[in-house]
Amino acid sequence: MSDNELDAAVAFALRLADEAGAVARRYFRTAVSVETKSNDTPVTIADREAEAVMRTLIEAEYPNHGILGEEQAPTRLGAEHIWVLDPIDGTKGFLSGVPLFGTLIALVREGIPILGIIDQPILGERWLGVAGRPTTLNGTNARTRACTDLAHASLSTTGVEYLSGPGDLDAFDRVRGAAARFRNIPDCYGYAMLASGFTDLVIEAGLNAWDYCALAPVIEGAGGTITDWRGAPLRLDSDGHVAAAGDARCHAAALEVLAAPGS
Amino acid sequence: MSDNELDAAVAFALRLADEAGAVARRYFRTAVSVETKSNDTPVTIADREAEAVMRTLIEAEYPNHGILGEEQAPTRLGAEHIWVLDPIDGTKGFLSGVPLFGTLIALVREGIPILGIIDQPILGERWLGVAGRPTTLNGTNARTRACTDLAHASLSTTGVEYLSGPGDLDAFDRVRGAAARFRNIPDCYGYAMLASGFTDLVIEAGLNAWDYCALAPVIEGAGGTITDWRGAPLRLDSDGHVAAAGDARCHAAALEVLAAPGS
Repeated sequence: MSDNELDAAVAFALRLADEAGAVARRYFRTAVSVETKSNDTPVTIADREAEAVMRTLIEAEYPNHGILGEEQAPTRLGAEHIWVLDPIDGTKGFLSGVPLFGTLIALVREGIPILGIIDQPILGERWLGVAGRPTTLNGTNARTRACTDLAHASLSTTGVEYLSGPGDLDAFDRVRGAAARFRNIPDCYGYAMLASGFTDLVIEAGLNAWDYCALAPVIEGAGGTITDWRGAPLRLDSDGHVAAAGDARCHAAALEVLAAPGS
Repeated sequence: MSDNELDAAVAFALRLADEAGAVARRYFRTAVSVETKSNDTPVTIADREAEAVMRTLIEAEYPNHGILGEEQAPTRLGAEHIWVLDPIDGTKGFLSGVPLFGTLIALVREGIPILGIIDQPILGERWLGVAGRPTTLNGTNARTRACTDLAHASLSTTGVEYLSGPGDLDAFDRVRGAAARFRNIPDCYGYAMLASGFTDLVIEAGLNAWDYCALAPVIEGAGGTITDWRGAPLRLDSDGHVAAAGDARCHAAALEVLAAPGS
């Protein structure tokens, strides 16, 4: 993708966020009916309609690109470029009237996220990350803050109850014990706060590609580091364990504690 | 307190919220230094200054009233009327840049909360509850929603890690198992969402008087029920276990499950 093509993709992604956000705003704090999906998570007409709006735009603009979204079956997953969409990341929060859910939009090339948007349609906050470029919040550069070690780190996760894989909670609890402070911050909003330098560390597990692909360009372009728990860069086929830090030193310390029960 | 005196107290309480909110907004998302209090919770200059501003106004307007605030020693606790203040309920969220913390202001008469404000200074949302009057959100009536039983209830708490008293987590987990959905919603914001009819049930433990006194008039004036876990109305000297529901039927069902391991 040339610089011009990437610029066009960014402009297009911003339009996707505009359209999905308009749907979310229309249904927020209204009495939407809720269905429970096979994985026991809720879905509403707002999730479905916001994804459908984005899919229609992508099919028209980039008919050869793939689409992987939370609410519909994937399309053209063999394509070089794949759009990865979570229309409402944080449906439970959305349903509870809490304005921290986000629309996540990523463009992935050969498995690697090269463009990411975290959009908060109610608060009017939009983080944009593009590979090799500085991350912005509403057009102004966003930067992570320095944090040399875990003892000074402010840590967040969506909720410890989501760390349900074998050993996940134990590993997380070791990091929590070493961190200065811990706070639940739901879904993408924790990563957004990290990108803007208000927290230092986010550790999660059990995420899907549509939960994390958009985060990588945002965090990296803000000066942070985001990988799986073993330190590998996030890809479309990562295992859903995510460790993000604003400072590489804090990230390295967290990975060490995640890996080593004895530390 | 006559109706006229109560009207004056309401107007005064709104002024307290204005002044405390101005302090919170000035420090939000800035690099404030953090101290850790003896109970291992953080405090910042924003908490301290917001409480001091409110105390100065109360001393000038109601010199015979008592004051119980999170950040300073109590004053005149033997008085008939006591102002109960939490300048920033959710300091950890405040420090993480998350705009869901609240300023809580209550007026308690002979131990019973008769006036409560939940103010969110960043989102510009203010719930006002006054004994015997309808609760308002920014001047418009707020109402809880109907929820006949636990199986249809959307439940929240600040974080399960706060349910640390003996048996608290087990009791909570029984309710969580019976509820339709569960979501972490931090601090006062869960009760605000309940008052506005977006969730059905909030269950917490380990709260202090400044965490819960302001909630009672807001929830009750919105049509909800809020008590301790045994069903007693909240008073200045309650034990910090709080169960709030938008619908009395849901509240009764929750108390039953909290009390009875076998149910």
